[in-house]
Amino acid sequence: MSTSHTINGNRLLLRLEEFARIGATAKGGVNRQALTELDRRARRLLTELARARGFSVFQDPAANLFVRREGRDADLPPLLIGSHLDSQPTGGRFDGALGTLAAYEVLESLEDKGIETECPVEVVAWMNEEGCRFAPGCMGSSAFAAGAIPQSWATIISTDGSSLKEELAATLEALPEAAMRPLGFPVAAYLEVHIEQGPSLEKEGIPIGIVTGIQGTRWLEVKVTGQAAHAGTTGLEYRRDPMRALSEALAELFGTVMPQDERARFTVGQMTLSPGAVNAIPEIACCTVDARHVETGLLDSLVKRIGEVLKRHAETNGCTVELRETFNMAPATFPSGMLDVLSSAAETAGLQSKKILSGAFHDALFVNRVAPSAMIFVPCRDGLSHNEAEFVEPDWSIAGGSMLFSAVMELLARRGSAGSGALEGETPK
Amino acid sequence: MSTSHTINGNRLLLRLEEFARIGATAKGGVNRQALTELDRRARRLLTELARARGFSVFQDPAANLFVRREGRDADLPPLLIGSHLDSQPTGGRFDGALGTLAAYEVLESLEDKGIETECPVEVVAWMNEEGCRFAPGCMGSSAFAAGAIPQSWATIISTDGSSLKEELAATLEALPEAAMRPLGFPVAAYLEVHIEQGPSLEKEGIPIGIVTGIQGTRWLEVKVTGQAAHAGTTGLEYRRDPMRALSEALAELFGTVMPQDERARFTVGQMTLSPGAVNAIPEIACCTVDARHVETGLLDSLVKRIGEVLKRHAETNGCTVELRETFNMAPATFPSGMLDVLSSAAETAGLQSKKILSGAFHDALFVNRVAPSAMIFVPCRDGLSHNEAEFVEPDWSIAGGSMLFSAVMELLARRGSAGSGALEGETPK
Repeated sequence: MSTSHTINGNRLLLRLEEFARIGATAKGGVNRQALTELDRRARRLLTELARARGFSVFQDPAANLFVRREGRDADLPPLLIGSHLDSQPTGGRFDGALGTLAAYEVLESLEDKGIETECPVEVVAWMNEEGCRFAPGCMGSSAFAAGAIPQSWATIISTDGSSLKEELAATLEALPEAAMRPLGFPVAAYLEVHIEQGPSLEKEGIPIGIVTGIQGTRWLEVKVTGQAAHAGTTGLEYRRDPMRALSEALAELFGTVMPQDERARFTVGQMTLSPGAVNAIPEIACCTVDARHVETGLLDSLVKRIGEVLKRHAETNGCTVELRETFNMAPATFPSGMLDVLSSAAETAGLQSKKILSGAFHDALFVNRVAPSAMIFVPCRDGLSHNEAEFVEPDWSIAGGSMLFSAVMELLARRGSAGSGALEGETPK
Repeated sequence: MSTSHTINGNRLLLRLEEFARIGATAKGGVNRQALTELDRRARRLLTELARARGFSVFQDPAANLFVRREGRDADLPPLLIGSHLDSQPTGGRFDGALGTLAAYEVLESLEDKGIETECPVEVVAWMNEEGCRFAPGCMGSSAFAAGAIPQSWATIISTDGSSLKEELAATLEALPEAAMRPLGFPVAAYLEVHIEQGPSLEKEGIPIGIVTGIQGTRWLEVKVTGQAAHAGTTGLEYRRDPMRALSEALAELFGTVMPQDERARFTVGQMTLSPGAVNAIPEIACCTVDARHVETGLLDSLVKRIGEVLKRHAETNGCTVELRETFNMAPATFPSGMLDVLSSAAETAGLQSKKILSGAFHDALFVNRVAPSAMIFVPCRDGLSHNEAEFVEPDWSIAGGSMLFSAVMELLARRGSAGSGALEGETPK
C-alpha cells in the first residue's frame, strides 16, 4: 500500500468511538434516530470537527449536511463522498456512521497531506436514511436527487407523534453555523462506503466489496379469499380453502423463482389467516411479498409471474385473489466507469475486492440518478445489521477508509486537471 | 308414512319456538350458554313440561337432565334419546335444541298413542356440549361415559370469570324438583338427532342423514425455526427460510392428504410469522393443523406423515421443526346393528336417507363408548351453524322427529319383549 494512499486509521477508529457515544445503548449499539436531539448532536459534532479543521459546512432544506474542502476551481461540481448519521432504534455503530466518518477521514487525510484538488471534495451526511422514525427512508438523498421536497413531507408524523416538518425545521435551526444552500446541485461523482449487512465478504475473507448495483424492490399485499367453513363437517367438494391456494402458490414460487434466477429474491415476511380458528377453514389468507431484482425488466416479469401463479392456484381452489402494490423502487446499476475506478483503486490500495450486489437500498441509489455513483462495502460480523450487536473489525473499517481514499484519488486523477474527465456524460437516467 | 310412526309435527315446531325465546338474540339466534341463568330457564321449562305430562325428571352430578317415561320393566336399562340445550354465544335455534325437543316429542307421542314399552325411554339434555363458556365441550356426556367427574373440573373458569364448580352447583340447586341420581348407569341404546352443520343433505335434497361415525380429531401446533435475515441483502446460500419450508410442506400435504383419501381432513386455520416484517425472512413460522379421520389407524398414520413431511422440508431449508399435540379425540364408528336400525326406520317412515360421516364431535361420540349409539342428521340451510342465521326448514325438523320416533319403535321391536335383543354385546370399546 503506497504511503500516499494511506489514511489515519487510528483517527478513524477514534471518530467511530466518539460518534457511537451519541445515542449509545446499554447493549453496545446506537439509538440515534433521524431528526432527534441525538441526531442533532451528531450533526453538531461533525460540524465542530470540520470547522476546527477549516472546512466550510452547509446544509440544505432537507437537512442534508455537507462539509466542503475547497478545490482549485470553486465553480466545479464537487466530488461527493459520505453516507448517513441516523440509526435504527436498536441499531449498530457502523451502519451509516462508518461511511460518513470514512469520508470525513478522507477529507482530513487530503488536508494532512496538503493534496490540492481541482474540484472541491465534499462529505455528506444524508438526512433520514433509515426511515424508521419517519417513513420512508433515504429522505434526504431522494429529495436531493429530485431537487425538491415532496409535498407528502408536510403531513408525515413520526412513530413518536412528532411532525416531520417541525423536526426538520428544528434540526436546521439547531445548526446556525452551517450556511443554507439550495436543495440539489451538480455533483461530479458520488462514492459511499457502507457495511455489507450480509455475510458474504466476511465468509470469503475479502475486505472490499465493489457494489455493482442495488436491487429494485416491489412490495405486494396478497389477499386470497375463499369460504370459511368447519374443518370437519365440510365435504371435500365444498372446501374453498384460501390457505391451500396460498400454500400451493407460494411453494411453486419458492421452488422456482430463486432456483431459476439467483439474482431474484422472493420473501414472505407477514401472513395472517382469518377468522383464525384452529378448526375452521379460513375465509381469507393474506401475506406480503417482497420481490427484488437488479434488472427492471426481470423484476417486472417476476411480479407479473407472482400474480399469475397466485391467480391460477386461487382459481383451482375456488378462491379469488387480490394484489396491491405498496412499494415500488426501481433497481440501480452503477456506471461501469465508476466500477472501473473502484477496481483500480482497490489494486492501488493493495486491497482484495470482489464485485457484489446490494440487496438493501442506500442513499447511493438515489444519488446515482443525478451523478455517477458507486458504493464500497466492508464486511460486518455474521452479516448482522440493524442490531445492537452489529460489529466491524477495526481492520475492515480502516480498509473501507483506505479504499475510499484510493478511489477519490483515482477519480480525481481520471477527471484530470481540467475537471472534466472520462466520467462526464455517464450519469444514468 | 304409517300413522303409527307419525309424531305431532306442529307441537315440535311450537316447542322449538318456545325454547328459542330463552336467550333469543336480536338477529334471530340464541345465546344460551351452558350453566347460565338462561340455560337454567330452558332446563326448568323442559322439567315443567315433563312433569305436567306425568313424566319423572332426574339430574346427575354433571347436571345432565333426564326425563323418564316408565316401561313395563323399571329395572331394564332405558333407551336414551336426546341432545343438548346449551348454545354458542351467537348460536342458532336448532343446534342441540332440535335433538332434545325431537326426543321429547317422541316421548309425548308414545304417551299420546298409549304405547307401552318394555324398557323405560328417557330423554336427555347433556350439560355443556358447546364448550364455549366452559371448555372443553361435551362435558356432560363425557363425564357420563366415564362415570366420574374429572378432577380438572374443580379449577375450570368460564370466559366470564365464573367457576364451573359454583355454576354447576347453582344449576343443580335451581331445579330441586329433579331427583338426583348417580352419574352413569346402564343404557340400552342411545339415539341423537342433530342438524348436519354442513351442506351435503340440503344440496342433495335428502332429509335424513344416517351418521356412520364421527371423525377423530388431532390438533397440532407447528413451529418451524430458521434464521431471520434481510430479504434483500442475504445471499441465497445463507437463506434459512421457515416460510419456504412451511409453504412447501403444506402444499405437499394439501396436494396429497385429501386427494388420496377422501375421508381424511387437513386444515390450517392459524398462521403467524415472526418477527413479521415485510422485508425480513422470518425466524419462525408457526401454524396449527387440524387433522381428522374416521379410522384411528389412518388418523395416526396421517399425523405421523404430517410430521415427516414437515421435517423433510424443514431440513431441506436448513430449518428445524417442533410439533406439539394440543388435542386428541379418537374417532367413533357407530355399531353396524344401530345403522341397520336407522336404515329400517327410515324405510318405515318413508324418509329418503343417506349414510353420512360427521366431521364435528357430538355427545353421541362419548355415549357410544358405553352404549350402542347412533345419530340422525337433518339438513340445515347452506350448512350454516354456530351462527344466528342457522335455519332448519319446518319439514326437516319434523322429518328428524318422525325418523327418531320410527327408530325408537324399530329398536324397541328388535329388543323384543324380554328387553334383551340383537344389540346386546355391541357396545364398542
